[in-house]
Amino acid sequence: DFFGALDEVKAAFGVHEEDLHTSIAGGILKFSTTIDEILSHGQRYIKQVKESRNTKFISLLMHGPSGSGKTALAASIALASKFPFVRLISPEAMVGMSESSKINYIDNTFRDAYKSPLNILVIDNLEGLIDWVPIGPRFSNPVLQALKVYLKRQPPDGHRLLIISTSSSYSVLKQLDILNCFHNELAVPNLKSLEEFKSVMDAAEFMNDEIRRTVVKQLYGVFGTNKLDIGIKRALVNIDTAQFDEDEVNELVELMAPSLVRENQSGSPSHY
Amino acid sequence: DFFGALDEVKAAFGVHEEDLHTSIAGGILKFSTTIDEILSHGQRYIKQVKESRNTKFISLLMHGPSGSGKTALAASIALASKFPFVRLISPEAMVGMSESSKINYIDNTFRDAYKSPLNILVIDNLEGLIDWVPIGPRFSNPVLQALKVYLKRQPPDGHRLLIISTSSSYSVLKQLDILNCFHNELAVPNLKSLEEFKSVMDAAEFMNDEIRRTVVKQLYGVFGTNKLDIGIKRALVNIDTAQFDEDEVNELVELMAPSLVRENQSGSPSHY
Amino acid sequence: DFFGALDEVKAAFGVHEEDLHTSIAGGILKFSTTIDEILSHGQRYIKQVKESRNTKFISLLMHGPSGSGKTALAASIALASKFPFVRLISPEAMVGMSESSKINYIDNTFRDAYKSPLNILVIDNLEGLIDWVPIGPRFSNPVLQALKVYLKRQPPDGHRLLIISTSSSYSVLKQLDILNCFHNELAVPNLKSLEEFKSVMDAAEFMNDEIRRTVVKQLYGVFGTNKLDIGIKRALVNIDTAQFDEDEVNELVELMAPSLVRENQSGSPSHY
Amino acid sequence: DFFGALDEVKAAFGVHEEDLHTSIAGGILKFSTTIDEILSHGQRYIKQVKESRNTKFISLLMHGPSGSGKTALAASIALASKFPFVRLISPEAMVGMSESSKINYIDNTFRDAYKSPLNILVIDNLEGLIDWVPIGPRFSNPVLQALKVYLKRQPPDGHRLLIISTSSSYSVLKQLDILNCFHNELAVPNLKSLEEFKSVMDAAEFMNDEIRRTVVKQLYGVFGTNKLDIGIKRALVNIDTAQFDEDEVNELVELMAPSLVRENQSGSPSHY
Amino acid sequence: DFFGALDEVKAAFGVHEEDLHTSIAGGILKFSTTIDEILSHGQRYIKQVKESRNTKFISLLMHGPSGSGKTALAASIALASKFPFVRLISPEAMVGMSESSKINYIDNTFRDAYKSPLNILVIDNLEGLIDWVPIGPRFSNPVLQALKVYLKRQPPDGHRLLIISTSSSYSVLKQLDILNCFHNELAVPNLKSLEEFKSVMDAAEFMNDEIRRTVVKQLYGVFGTNKLDIGIKRALVNIDTAQFDEDEVNELVELMAPSLVRENQSGSPSHY
Amino acid sequence: DFFGALDEVKAAFGVHEEDLHTSIAGGILKFSTTIDEILSHGQRYIKQVKESRNTKFISLLMHGPSGSGKTALAASIALASKFPFVRLISPEAMVGMSESSKINYIDNTFRDAYKSPLNILVIDNLEGLIDWVPIGPRFSNPVLQALKVYLKRQPPDGHRLLIISTSSSYSVLKQLDILNCFHNELAVPNLKSLEEFKSVMDAAEFMNDEIRRTVVKQLYGVFGTNKLDIGIKRALVNIDTAQFDEDEVNELVELMAPSLVRENQSGSPSHY
Ligand SMILES: Nc1ncnc2c1ncn2[C@@H]1O[C@H](COP(=O)(O)OP(=O)(O)OP(=O)(O)O)[C@@H](O)[C@H]1O
Ligand SMILES: Nc1ncnc2c1ncn2[C@@H]1O[C@H](COP(=O)(O)OP(=O)(O)OP(=O)(O)O)[C@@H](O)[C@H]1O
Ligand SMILES: Nc1ncnc2c1ncn2[C@@H]1O[C@H](COP(=O)(O)OP(=O)(O)OP(=O)(O)O)[C@@H](O)[C@H]1O
Ligand SMILES: Nc1ncnc2c1ncn2[C@@H]1O[C@H](COP(=O)(O)OP(=O)(O)OP(=O)(O)O)[C@@H](O)[C@H]1O
Ligand SMILES: Nc1ncnc2c1ncn2[C@@H]1O[C@H](COP(=O)(O)OP(=O)(O)OP(=O)(O)O)[C@@H](O)[C@H]1O
Ligand SMILES: Nc1ncnc2c1ncn2[C@@H]1O[C@H](COP(=O)(O)OP(=O)(O)OP(=O)(O)O)[C@@H](O)[C@H]1O
Ligand SMILES: [Mg+2]
Ligand SMILES: [Mg+2]
Ligand SMILES: [Mg+2]
Ligand SMILES: [Mg+2]
Ligand SMILES: [Mg+2]
Ligand SMILES: [Mg+2]
Repeated sequence: DFFGALDEVKAAFGVHEEDLHTSIAGGILKFSTTIDEILSHGQRYIKQVKESRNTKFISLLMHGPSGSGKTALAASIALASKFPFVRLISPEAMVGMSESSKINYIDNTFRDAYKSPLNILVIDNLEGLIDWVPIGPRFSNPVLQALKVYLKRQPPDGHRLLIISTSSSYSVLKQLDILNCFHNELAVPNLKSLEEFKSVMDAAEFMNDEIRRTVVKQLYGVFGTNKLDIGIKRALVNIDTAQFDEDEVNELVELMAPSLVRENQSGSPSHY
Repeated sequence: DFFGALDEVKAAFGVHEEDLHTSIAGGILKFSTTIDEILSHGQRYIKQVKESRNTKFISLLMHGPSGSGKTALAASIALASKFPFVRLISPEAMVGMSESSKINYIDNTFRDAYKSPLNILVIDNLEGLIDWVPIGPRFSNPVLQALKVYLKRQPPDGHRLLIISTSSSYSVLKQLDILNCFHNELAVPNLKSLEEFKSVMDAAEFMNDEIRRTVVKQLYGVFGTNKLDIGIKRALVNIDTAQFDEDEVNELVELMAPSLVRENQSGSPSHY
Repeated sequence: DFFGALDEVKAAFGVHEEDLHTSIAGGILKFSTTIDEILSHGQRYIKQVKESRNTKFISLLMHGPSGSGKTALAASIALASKFPFVRLISPEAMVGMSESSKINYIDNTFRDAYKSPLNILVIDNLEGLIDWVPIGPRFSNPVLQALKVYLKRQPPDGHRLLIISTSSSYSVLKQLDILNCFHNELAVPNLKSLEEFKSVMDAAEFMNDEIRRTVVKQLYGVFGTNKLDIGIKRALVNIDTAQFDEDEVNELVELMAPSLVRENQSGSPSHY
Repeated sequence: DFFGALDEVKAAFGVHEEDLHTSIAGGILKFSTTIDEILSHGQRYIKQVKESRNTKFISLLMHGPSGSGKTALAASIALASKFPFVRLISPEAMVGMSESSKINYIDNTFRDAYKSPLNILVIDNLEGLIDWVPIGPRFSNPVLQALKVYLKRQPPDGHRLLIISTSSSYSVLKQLDILNCFHNELAVPNLKSLEEFKSVMDAAEFMNDEIRRTVVKQLYGVFGTNKLDIGIKRALVNIDTAQFDEDEVNELVELMAPSLVRENQSGSPSHY
Repeated sequence: DFFGALDEVKAAFGVHEEDLHTSIAGGILKFSTTIDEILSHGQRYIKQVKESRNTKFISLLMHGPSGSGKTALAASIALASKFPFVRLISPEAMVGMSESSKINYIDNTFRDAYKSPLNILVIDNLEGLIDWVPIGPRFSNPVLQALKVYLKRQPPDGHRLLIISTSSSYSVLKQLDILNCFHNELAVPNLKSLEEFKSVMDAAEFMNDEIRRTVVKQLYGVFGTNKLDIGIKRALVNIDTAQFDEDEVNELVELMAPSLVRENQSGSPSHY
Repeated sequence: DFFGALDEVKAAFGVHEEDLHTSIAGGILKFSTTIDEILSHGQRYIKQVKESRNTKFISLLMHGPSGSGKTALAASIALASKFPFVRLISPEAMVGMSESSKINYIDNTFRDAYKSPLNILVIDNLEGLIDWVPIGPRFSNPVLQALKVYLKRQPPDGHRLLIISTSSSYSVLKQLDILNCFHNELAVPNLKSLEEFKSVMDAAEFMNDEIRRTVVKQLYGVFGTNKLDIGIKRALVNIDTAQFDEDEVNELVELMAPSLVRENQSGSPSHY
């Protein structure tokens, strides 16, 4: 089992596990087949980078709505690689840094990677790394330019590198003309149906199965639709919050209501 | 009584009470059932953060028009939690600071919070914290980016944290793409009817009950409407100002007049 | 007499009188009943701040066209208060200061105010204080943000404060979302009719009464209107300038001509 | 004779004459009655500032198209005042200075003026002083804000001050909301007719009178109009340039041609 | 053979080969006659710079879509020149440098070039060198201005220089008014047909010839078009990635699918 | 012969000849009568500045499309003046300088000029000097403002100065409101017809006369037009490049093709 090996790797040299493990504290629930596909594509790219005679460098983009599970999936793939060097570059580690410190930080991480034969870098939350804000819009162009170079740069001879970047602003990356930095893209979806939500409630052991079915029935009854659009992250918190209310069922229905996709609305709200 | 316990907490370690108590100097008048609902939702989230096996971190947004009582309500909930660490982050404490000093200040407060097992942070006036001004628009992107990280960051293992943020610029937060940082939102309304205003006059003991009724009668008589739209803060000042005028009734009617919602106007003026 | 007491206060501790007295060098001519109303509202707010059990802080906005007499009226009210601490914050004192020096200057003045039990601060020319210029538009956001905090901040326990701010750019304050910082607003009008202008000529003793009547008659004759729109400041200078011309009457008519409001024009030009 | 006294003043204390005299190197040719009117208005304001009981400070704006003679006229009036303190503030003296050095320079000049009882300051080329450029538009807001204060500030008791500012960008001053800083405005016109141009040729002694008449006749013949729109500055250079050409008449006609106002054009081109 | 001489030059003085050789790690596959034409134009300009009596300086622009092979072709031409001084100026070497350091770096490279009699400079990725980003748009104007000077500057007497610049943003260069810095332009195309792609698969030895034909057949079968639009760089990676999948043929078809140009689309997508 | 004297001046004091001579390395080919007119106007202005009693300062603008020969013509006129002080101010000498260094450099050059009795300054490429770029647009306002002062400033008594500025962005200068800094303007045209191109080929001795006629014939044959629009600079390079091709005639036709003005196009492309 490819992903079952996670625990063993924990002690490996060069792997900064705390950060990556925090990201998958909620586990990886397989509420849809797409989850498996993403994981197996990840597995294939790891193999290519490790073994190909021609391709010693791959740069991937994992994109999807806010809270859809991008970071958790990227971390899972990275930790499962058994590569000796696995690192996370994310905005959390750079709060309040100047632009040049950020570039320095990124540069140092890449230099470290270039010392090891087999490397994975998770570059999490690209728009956060460049301080993107849609009003203006504003962002750090120096950090962006540095990333554009690093996302395309071949590691030196004898070194192999897989980059997995995440983003919840695909259209921003397009406007920034940065999509051509990636060899391929993987889309991470939201929960899209009450069935998928039901299987998440099951996994989270929300009350008992009858109550879960009641929740689904009520949601369907009230809104007359099966369609949902909510990230796994918020879905899990809602389930938990309801359990602290006197009237769990009604509260969960209320908390989930804004995520139901009414038919007369213009399609899905998740244009991220 | 959940909120009656406020006084006892005063002496608790780590609670900066002066700031929070100043915010509720005018008390919490229950002029509408919404006030109770807000307080009881606050109570439930405190319980969840304290006791949940899965959710050790909740970030809430309390939003409403200017002067509607957001800060007072957030402070009440925070002080009533009995959590050992309760702090206020607000623009008042950061006047004239450089961007990096502000980020440092915020960072330090969070670091302190991460040392205590049970924490509440009131992050007051989000748009003020980022120096938002609608012309331009302008704001501090570095402070915004730092807040985006802190509003999403899990506290370390063994620490639990409830964040209550306030804002009177909901649409700004939406444009800044910061709403996805909150697990849930609580709306704080203005006074919406002459009945609600009457109950505030009663609580404030404006002259005597007959005079209060006269004020309401005159307001209704002149404007032919029962609908009001004014924050509790300005309503309380108006009541007090009128008492220093020779002709209290007429003066109060005059001071309140701009807040009546005339039927032929396009709905409520409070699009904050 | 409320305003007759001005002279006595001169020697009081903490009152920086030079600045405030310079502002009313031209006296306060009562050319309209509005002038009296403004002064008596000022008087009432002074009483409220001094005596109210609930309201220990009031922030007022005095707005009107350029040269309409805002600063002189604010200074009159402040000097008449007999409060031990009366200060003026204005752009004149801050020419060429850096943004942080300005904030420091404002901060120091408020700190001083917080030491005295009863305080008045005249914050003159808000748009000037933030370096506002309509092209761009440009302004100092740090100074604006500092003012937003100070205009809302309660003085500490045991201290009372009345703030009177002036502005000739009401719509700018609205765009800057700063109007909610004031508990109330007082409008200062221009001279609006030839009658009001006549009473100013009388007070200024322009030549003799017959000549003044001739001026009014000619203005009415030429333009067929009684409506005027000119600030008291420029009106007083015009009257004086004419006296240095060989042909006083014609010169004054010529100097006043641009301020007459012709009927076929779209109302009043004073959209400041 | 008011202006004939210029020479005597030369030696007076406090008068920086070189700068001002350079500006009127080309003399003041009275090609139109407006020139006399401007000079006599200047004379009247000098008298008012010197003698009035009420008005100890006047700020004038002298505006007109580029090269129309504003600086020369302002300098003439200033030098003729016999005031002990006469100074020029202009962009020439501040090339390459930082914004704060410029403000300092202006501040120092005003401080010097406040030491003398009777003062004239010529503030030349306002848009140049603030580094105005129409693209953008861009300008130095700190210098603008400083000028706005200085243009309105009363000199201290016992001191009198006349400010004459010049500008060739009236509409810019309007947009910058700076026109209300002036007590009055004086418009300086271009040469507007072939008659005015003829009298300039006469004064400049271009060849002989017959040739001058030929030039006028040819200009009128070719363009069928008497209307001209050209500043005195360029007109004088054109006359001189032609004299270095083999064919003076034709060359002068050619050099003046672009300044003739053809009837079928939409009025005058001089919307400066 | 002009390009066969590459290896010999490796040891030459002044040639920084590592950088240039890295760029052509994937070789130069002659999938279209245009490739040969580009190489022979390069050869002619090298001869002109080396031998012409009049032209001792030529500046070329090599432009084409992202990943079309510009850098590899420029590097090939440069390395084949046998010129004693061959250098690469590219964004990779300048990550995180300040604007002035970048200009210094460029300046130093040109100074070095001016010491040698025969020089080639490859200025790779012009838009990257100026930190261009389409949002805003933003870019480093100081670096742009420096490049504009260097791209036009004649080397000193006795020195000859060929500059080959590359860019994937032709329209940007046009907007920046920088096209007039080049004496001529060379366009580098994408792969445009399944035939060209087939010849690339052949050269890359993707599985066996039958399988390659199957891939082409399937692509044609599914999309009903022969037209392709993909850079050589991504085409080579796709071919390699497919080899690590269990189902190579289907995977390669899937990976190539987005690059097929469907007839009902508005022409080619490659408006770079 | 006015321009034949160039060589003699070479040794004169204060003349920086290298820079100016480099600009006319390609000679001055008289392909059109306009070239002679420009040179003779230059001669006349030199005489005026040298001898006029009234005009001791002239500032000229030489404008035309990119590569039309402006710098070469300005340099020719300057070198032919025999003035003791002849200098070039151009962007080349200021690469990478800070704004204040640039202003300092310009200031120093003018100071030097003010020490000599008779001076010529060629201020080459105005838009380059201010770092103009059409996107934005962006430019150095401090350098622009300094130039505006210097382009208008009279040299001190006893000194005479002719300024010749060049620009290929006339409309930019107009927008920047800088055209009023010049006493007159000289337009430098592109090659406009095949006849003019033929005379350039003749002067450059391209192959033999028959071949030149063939080139013209083919160009006319293919495009059916005699109209051309190309700068002398690029025309000369094209002629030289063709000589290094195996098929000179066809290559020259191909290189010149983009410069032919087809009848159905909307006039000339050279709106610079
Ligand atoms: N199938 C799944 N895929 C991803 N995450 C899952 C899945 N099942 C459960 N989770 C849990 O859901 C959470 C997903 O949060 P995560 O931070 O990865 O989302 P995200 O898309 O990166 O959010 P953001 O847009 O805020 O960065 C994690 O706690 C993870 O353990
Ligand atoms: N039901 C209530 N809810 C909130 N505040 C109340 C209530 N009743 C009385 N008050 C008093 O009204 C005032 C509310 O002011 P508060 O500063 O909390 O408003 P706010 O919405 O935060 O204003 P701002 O938009 O300016 O930040 C406080 O003095 C509080 O004591
Ligand atoms: N009724 C009046 N109200 C105000 N000022 C008066 C009145 N009568 C006479 N004055 C005189 O008129 C002048 C008003 O000038 P003041 O500076 O107060 O106007 P302002 O509106 O503040 O101008 P600005 O918009 O330029 O700040 C003062 O000199 C004042 O003494
Ligand atoms: N009637 C006149 N008015 C003004 N200047 C005159 C007159 N007659 C002759 N001159 C001469 O014309 C020139 C006017 O130039 P001046 O610099 O004053 O114009 P300006 O309007 O200030 O130009 P700019 O817009 O460039 O600042 C001076 O040399 C002056 O001596
Ligand atoms: N005919 C060819 N032309 C160019 N490159 C080729 C050719 N055949 C194979 N290649 C290989 O393809 C790759 C082209 O990549 P290169 O970096 O030169 O593209 P690019 O257009 O510069 O990309 P970018 O736009 O990202 O700068 C190189 O590895 C090169 O060896
Ligand atoms: N009649 C001519 N006029 C100008 N230059 C000529 C002429 N005949 C030949 N030349 C040569 O043509 C070249 C003109 O280039 P020059 O740099 O002067 O053009 P430019 O218009 O200044 O270009 P740019 O717009 O790039 O600054 C010079 O080498 C010059 O010697
Ligand atoms: Mg994430
Ligand atoms: Mg609040
Ligand atoms: Mg005022
Ligand atoms: Mg002038
Ligand atoms: Mg490249
Ligand atoms: Mg040039």
